[in-house]
Amino acid sequence: MFVSEKLGQYTADFHTAAVSDNVIHHAKRALVDWYGALLAGYPMAPTPMVEKSLALELDQGRARLPLGRAASTRAAALINGTASHTAEVDDIYREAIYHPGAPTFSAAMAVGQALNVNGMAFLKASIAGYETSTRIGRTMGRTHYKHWHNTGTVGTFGAATAAAYLLGLNAVQTANAIALSATFAAGLQQAFKLDSLAKPLHSGRAAEAGVTAALMAQQGVISSLDVFEGEVGLGRAMSNGPDWTHALDDLHAQFNITSMTFKNHACCGHTFAPIDGALTLQQQHGIAAENIDRIIIATYSPAIAVAGNTNPTTAPEARFSIPFVVATALIHGSVRLAAFDSERLTAPAIRALMSRIELQVDPAADSKFPGQRSAQVTIITRDGKEHLMLQPTRKGDPDMPLTDVELNDKFIELAVPVLGGERSAALSEALWRMEGAGDLSAMC
Amino acid sequence: MFVSEKLGQYTADFHTAAVSDNVIHHAKRALVDWYGALLAGYPMAPTPMVEKSLALELDQGRARLPLGRAASTRAAALINGTASHTAEVDDIYREAIYHPGAPTFSAAMAVGQALNVNGMAFLKASIAGYETSTRIGRTMGRTHYKHWHNTGTVGTFGAATAAAYLLGLNAVQTANAIALSATFAAGLQQAFKLDSLAKPLHSGRAAEAGVTAALMAQQGVISSLDVFEGEVGLGRAMSNGPDWTHALDDLHAQFNITSMTFKNHACCGHTFAPIDGALTLQQQHGIAAENIDRIIIATYSPAIAVAGNTNPTTAPEARFSIPFVVATALIHGSVRLAAFDSERLTAPAIRALMSRIELQVDPAADSKFPGQRSAQVTIITRDGKEHLMLQPTRKGDPDMPLTDVELNDKFIELAVPVLGGERSAALSEALWRMEGAGDLSAMC
Repeated sequence: MFVSEKLGQYTADFHTAAVSDNVIHHAKRALVDWYGALLAGYPMAPTPMVEKSLALELDQGRARLPLGRAASTRAAALINGTASHTAEVDDIYREAIYHPGAPTFSAAMAVGQALNVNGMAFLKASIAGYETSTRIGRTMGRTHYKHWHNTGTVGTFGAATAAAYLLGLNAVQTANAIALSATFAAGLQQAFKLDSLAKPLHSGRAAEAGVTAALMAQQGVISSLDVFEGEVGLGRAMSNGPDWTHALDDLHAQFNITSMTFKNHACCGHTFAPIDGALTLQQQHGIAAENIDRIIIATYSPAIAVAGNTNPTTAPEARFSIPFVVATALIHGSVRLAAFDSERLTAPAIRALMSRIELQVDPAADSKFPGQRSAQVTIITRDGKEHLMLQPTRKGDPDMPLTDVELNDKFIELAVPVLGGERSAALSEALWRMEGAGDLSAMC
Repeated sequence: MFVSEKLGQYTADFHTAAVSDNVIHHAKRALVDWYGALLAGYPMAPTPMVEKSLALELDQGRARLPLGRAASTRAAALINGTASHTAEVDDIYREAIYHPGAPTFSAAMAVGQALNVNGMAFLKASIAGYETSTRIGRTMGRTHYKHWHNTGTVGTFGAATAAAYLLGLNAVQTANAIALSATFAAGLQQAFKLDSLAKPLHSGRAAEAGVTAALMAQQGVISSLDVFEGEVGLGRAMSNGPDWTHALDDLHAQFNITSMTFKNHACCGHTFAPIDGALTLQQQHGIAAENIDRIIIATYSPAIAVAGNTNPTTAPEARFSIPFVVATALIHGSVRLAAFDSERLTAPAIRALMSRIELQVDPAADSKFPGQRSAQVTIITRDGKEHLMLQPTRKGDPDMPLTDVELNDKFIELAVPVLGGERSAALSEALWRMEGAGDLSAMC
């Protein structure tokens, strides 16, 4: 069987598979985290512009945007997928360098609302989407990430799987939906550069691509089922021709949705080990920001390639600047949404501290990437003392997880500016009870 | 200036640029050819399935599908882009291994109808789309075509340019539309394999991607303007890092739309030199199909990689089978739409002749690809005679062009089964007068 066929079979079988309470609980953690990201990103550029550009596809259909506006299924997937990847607070599957929630839940919600499914079906579809896409992403490997944005590429599989599940496609139709979405997969690393607003659109287009592929497969469109492992397929076109033989071996044994990283800071995940290390050193040694002479941050090379910007001038750029977010953390104590307000972007105190931060590639950290995200942080104070620590993982990684309370607090912090306190609290309760919901009416 | 900025400037300036009657005439030749392809492909799988899958986006908006059904702008671009690349009769820009018409005209028509533009604006937008995208495709080169389908990838630029022109975007907005569409570009060669229906969808998604990017850029979405030449941009991710320095040098001096290949057979363009060579030999020497012992076809290697299928079982596969189409030509005299009817696919006479056809790579032909598409055809008859000819180019290539009358005859042949004789003739007249049309009402 080809990879697409195995994934199609797994997804079709998942309708009748038992799912443990533990897996459902983890799926709800991911859902709560995603919904916070969705609400936080919804008012931010580029989402309002995207919504205007799709006006012809709105105010109709049964899918809904975050504040309740109606949308066609595909437009809702595109807008929600974009919004939930904008604020840089969405979840990560570390081994695949991939944010599964944004494309997967966005597709599941758009199709789920269009079909009026219940909460359990929505959760199971999303779990299936996480499982298929994380394994494809893991197999595509680090070579893929050099040129490609996994949330745009691999995200199509999360979206296609979730959509196919909710549409009730059989194993062969689902395999075709997944194979078709493979040839829609896109998203260049170069789109992260300059002051581009394109990055979150990768997630949006992935959600839309997966939904589109599933809708087409439902009508009988077939695709090349050997698209992953073929001579001119995804593996060779977009990576170094990885070995697919054992790519899906743990598909039935392990649920990757139980091993997500939930972000504790509102910026690129590659900056977290430096932030966590710097904050820990500051707390342990009582270092005031103004007493810092120099900071040396040594971490894995993709972190520097993606988040090594030493002079960010816009909020999107600042979210990808280790110097900016580390300086912000040391001066303000945290890196949340307020960190990227316009007055903060030009604050002289932050800029002064940034100029004293040096970035290096640490070969030891590099060799552990992507399975472990570590950084060595050295702070040298004005009195000549040198404080060093190895931050072995990130707060929020599965080996140092956020608690349910911490996750819910994060949701509330992100939701309140958009929905207000009362609606945010009610929505939080509804999300944590999603497996018993008769429909998705709470989610809009 | 980055490539995207140069293209943006060119496109914005094109509003006030003079265009010669000769270029307009060539644009109408391309339009007539595209419309025939659109009508021929509209009833064929996968387009009717695609239309059903997008039902939520139809029967509204001002864009139109071929038989007049209303559609949102993006849905029309997707459906028309798919339909016009389905029957394998659409135009080719040889140097870029690329079919510009399907993504470019489909995007121009969808946006043009939505905005109610006149015929001259429609033609100029399409010319601009041909010009920008052919140059990007030529630069991406043969390495790109190994894994990628240029009509899916490069086609996004034709669509984005045409849409940006019609939306009246300025140079910077147009640059952003083009740059944004670059990170939406997709379409794997592997999707041509097995019995996949995905290939024409690449053109559809390209048309949709370009329109989407232009609509977003109009609302202010900006992208990475260095997306072509950047370290992790399109050139490196999807080819061997081509040199962009002189990619656009002839942008103002030359109109590539005057150098299109128009297909004379209803199948993959890589099969044409073998068909033309075999037919010429047959005519010159009066060879009856039943007297053929063996045929040896030596041609450039991508032709064999893409169209070397020796045992096609479906119409899409048969269009990419040199043995099938050459055997069909020798037995039936031509390779038109009827060649792929189900009884022809399994006809014993065709299968018997196919089994006596041998394919080889010819290093001389290979070295001339993609600028020249040649084949050496040898027919050995049962009486032991060996007839050999070099087919140096294809009938329909710019150096051996179809006349306007031949092009119009092809249009009529493709249109009549869908529209009937009277409407086809009226449409043909309207298309040849497009530069004077006050609106696009003739086109639906």
